Amino acid sequence: MTAAPPAPLRLADVASAVGGKVVGDPELLLRGISALDRAGAQELSFLASAKYAKELVTSAAGAVLVTPELADAPGRCANRVVVARPHEAMLALLPRFYRMPERPFVGVHPSAVVAADAVVDPDSCIEAFTVVGAGARIGKGSWVGPHCTIGDGVVVGPDCRLVDQVTLYPGTTLGARVALHAGVRIGCDGFGYVFHEGVHRKIPHVGRCVIGDDVEIGANSTVDRGSLDATEIGAGTKIDNIVHVGHNVRIGRLCLLMAGVMIAGSVRIEDGAVIAGQVGISGHVTIGARATLAAQAGIISDVPPGETWGGFPARPHKEQMRSYAALRKLPELMRRLERLLARESPE
Amino acid sequence: MTAAPPAPLRLADVASAVGGKVVGDPELLLRGISALDRAGAQELSFLASAKYAKELVTSAAGAVLVTPELADAPGRCANRVVVARPHEAMLALLPRFYRMPERPFVGVHPSAVVAADAVVDPDSCIEAFTVVGAGARIGKGSWVGPHCTIGDGVVVGPDCRLVDQVTLYPGTTLGARVALHAGVRIGCDGFGYVFHEGVHRKIPHVGRCVIGDDVEIGANSTVDRGSLDATEIGAGTKIDNIVHVGHNVRIGRLCLLMAGVMIAGSVRIEDGAVIAGQVGISGHVTIGARATLAAQAGIISDVPPGETWGGFPARPHKEQMRSYAALRKLPELMRRLERLLARESPE
Amino acid sequence: MTAAPPAPLRLADVASAVGGKVVGDPELLLRGISALDRAGAQELSFLASAKYAKELVTSAAGAVLVTPELADAPGRCANRVVVARPHEAMLALLPRFYRMPERPFVGVHPSAVVAADAVVDPDSCIEAFTVVGAGARIGKGSWVGPHCTIGDGVVVGPDCRLVDQVTLYPGTTLGARVALHAGVRIGCDGFGYVFHEGVHRKIPHVGRCVIGDDVEIGANSTVDRGSLDATEIGAGTKIDNIVHVGHNVRIGRLCLLMAGVMIAGSVRIEDGAVIAGQVGISGHVTIGARATLAAQAGIISDVPPGETWGGFPARPHKEQMRSYAALRKLPELMRRLERLLARESPE
Repeated sequence: MTAAPPAPLRLADVASAVGGKVVGDPELLLRGISALDRAGAQELSFLASAKYAKELVTSAAGAVLVTPELADAPGRCANRVVVARPHEAMLALLPRFYRMPERPFVGVHPSAVVAADAVVDPDSCIEAFTVVGAGARIGKGSWVGPHCTIGDGVVVGPDCRLVDQVTLYPGTTLGARVALHAGVRIGCDGFGYVFHEGVHRKIPHVGRCVIGDDVEIGANSTVDRGSLDATEIGAGTKIDNIVHVGHNVRIGRLCLLMAGVMIAGSVRIEDGAVIAGQVGISGHVTIGARATLAAQAGIISDVPPGETWGGFPARPHKEQMRSYAALRKLPELMRRLERLLARESPE
Repeated sequence: MTAAPPAPLRLADVASAVGGKVVGDPELLLRGISALDRAGAQELSFLASAKYAKELVTSAAGAVLVTPELADAPGRCANRVVVARPHEAMLALLPRFYRMPERPFVGVHPSAVVAADAVVDPDSCIEAFTVVGAGARIGKGSWVGPHCTIGDGVVVGPDCRLVDQVTLYPGTTLGARVALHAGVRIGCDGFGYVFHEGVHRKIPHVGRCVIGDDVEIGANSTVDRGSLDATEIGAGTKIDNIVHVGHNVRIGRLCLLMAGVMIAGSVRIEDGAVIAGQVGISGHVTIGARATLAAQAGIISDVPPGETWGGFPARPHKEQMRSYAALRKLPELMRRLERLLARESPE
Repeated sequence: MTAAPPAPLRLADVASAVGGKVVGDPELLLRGISALDRAGAQELSFLASAKYAKELVTSAAGAVLVTPELADAPGRCANRVVVARPHEAMLALLPRFYRMPERPFVGVHPSAVVAADAVVDPDSCIEAFTVVGAGARIGKGSWVGPHCTIGDGVVVGPDCRLVDQVTLYPGTTLGARVALHAGVRIGCDGFGYVFHEGVHRKIPHVGRCVIGDDVEIGANSTVDRGSLDATEIGAGTKIDNIVHVGHNVRIGRLCLLMAGVMIAGSVRIEDGAVIAGQVGISGHVTIGARATLAAQAGIISDVPPGETWGGFPARPHKEQMRSYAALRKLPELMRRLERLLARESPE
């Protein structure tokens, strides 16, 4: 991990980097980016919507990115850069103001324990106390942080980043540019037992765990390997912290899974699905492409492509919300109803 | 962690290992086991139910385990082993095709830090960067993976496996054949405070945490120690990934807890209970023997033995599902009802 | 971690430590504290409420702390200390009977990897295999356990404790007396992407993560850093195991968050809020001061100060519980109702 000291930029540099127009002092030096209500005299801020214009009035920011429509919005801050899309411009400027994390060195830290037959690309970084098992391969440009365990035979593709304390069980393969945060566990044994002669006998898990290109997985999440088959996470899918993916699950491309999602075994999630926080999905169901699952939904049946489902047991979100609205009115209605029923149809 | 290269087996060897009958070429060499739709020419597959017979038609498997009833089911694959229970036979064959993980060595890795008065059985394996505290004991046949922390005075029984990055706080005792996956934390301080003079004062946790024989606990799960009393997990209980067990909880024998289950303090779970994913259990309640809790249930009262409960607040599953079914119909009914009530009993 | 062997105390010492009065043998030696149903002849127990008086009858405890009202409650155990508040007295005695965990040494373990420009207070403890990054600072009296990663530029205040395998990403600041349990991850990248040209592009996270004085965070919990702004956890707040706090969240002072809570980005939680297990909070909502959220609540709108909310979508707990009670009666009522409606208002 590397520190991120800001490098100062002139206001004129900011404008030219984002194709905007300077209003005010082009020589003003800026050292970082911050929200309107927090920014100081050496910081750049942004105003992307009239909704926040009142924050500009009192903002102490040194300069501000504004849309043409808001170029003259009242505010203490007279130094402005007029640009069509201030939010996008701000994102584009981040790497100019902040040094992004970089490999602290290239090579293998002397404390790391690397098996004799592991193949570690010379242009990769293996940090302190990391263990690389027999026959494992680490790709060019990859950065494996401290305290990681790369199991025997594991393949880490090019330009991957394993932040710290990541465990890759044997049978794991990472594509290119995979990012795994601290405490991620990939390729764990699935939760599979058969009850036989009075005990739960473990089903050996010999399947693989295949993580596609550009996947990012948040801290302390877990992905089990397949039993026979493979568990697969498709390219470009992003997973938040503390998510569990069970054995034999196949997740498509470009999905988003938020914190606390738990996915049981053999689930299929098709491309572009969005799964909100704390959703649970029962074994063997299919979530269609581009479906959205609302927070805390409990999925026990297939969800068609493109639909938004919620609640437990989950069903189309709008129907579910209508039921919840009716449920709010139910106690009052029930009082009136019981009186009516007693009169009309005594049982 | 060790790699798992398949050792080839003749079809005749497969048949004799499972007590089945060869149809086709007994000399055919097989190198692994796979599902019908994924198996290749050197792989064995299995057909246990007529439901999947259509997958046999196109399967490219080299050979297939079939029941006597399905021995002649149509399919490209002519090499078959006829056996009463193909699924059980397949499980029995797994250790023949795949080398199960084995200790990479016996002894203590030179990088491990072991306290002078710790008692480590000479027939155990302590991998790189593991720390074993003062007075701790590691039993015969145990395998402690890399980056583990075995606290002072902890007892690890015989034939245990701690995969990687496991933390055992002081006060922890593991029985025999306990398996703890990557990132498991056992014996953590419980969440106990008293609000006193305007702050939350921590209640010191001095109780123990006792894990029975043959318990398996999934990746990134946590079990707190008792406050005064012990937290106990009974023999043969299996726990999935990302599960939390609070202080003073007592879990019986042969229970199953799925991913995302959170159990508050002082809960009692009797033998053979099955707790589905993301269930939450409030403090001090009792789950009866062989009870089943449906996924995402919120338990705030005792559950009788043998019953299946679900929902929030949880109650018998069938009743709960009837209520959910009624809830689906409620919005429509309510429209008709409000009209009726307006007519019949205006208020 | 250090072992906690009990130091024996005379009953007279116990009484004088808590300002109580001895009944029985003042020379009796006691070696620990335990619950009435578990205590042995050398252990002290306590009876704080008449509700548990029947456990005193058969308790094998060597001595018991009792209230004046219960001083003569019947029981095998004749050695007693009469004191106004037995439970508080017991908590005060815990550090006399049990040695609390203490730093095993002062200084830096030879295996630790500390950057040349890191500032480690000479009165701190850095245990085995810990990595301290460039420019990081570790305060006086702090105790950093094994396998921790302290990112570049991180500030750890005085008297902190990081138990084991804790990751502090760059941008993290800990106040004084912060306690972080095994596997905690602080300052992780938030879950922020913009969908642009067919892929989820990561928003760089350059904000900070600021943990206040006396905060305690349980095992395997995660706290993301801010995107531009900071994520903040206020002084005296206590967080249980397996909790997730998203980017830009601001939690006030003296809050309690139980196991499994997941908080999305930019949420505000004001002072003294209590959030029960498995609660989920959607992005950008505010939880008012001293509000209580019931277990498994799904919060999708602001919660006023001091109120108790529950359910999904959450609303005032009492209303929600009335709806749940009505829901229980709904199936039966619906049967009668459908008959009535068929008769009264056929559609």
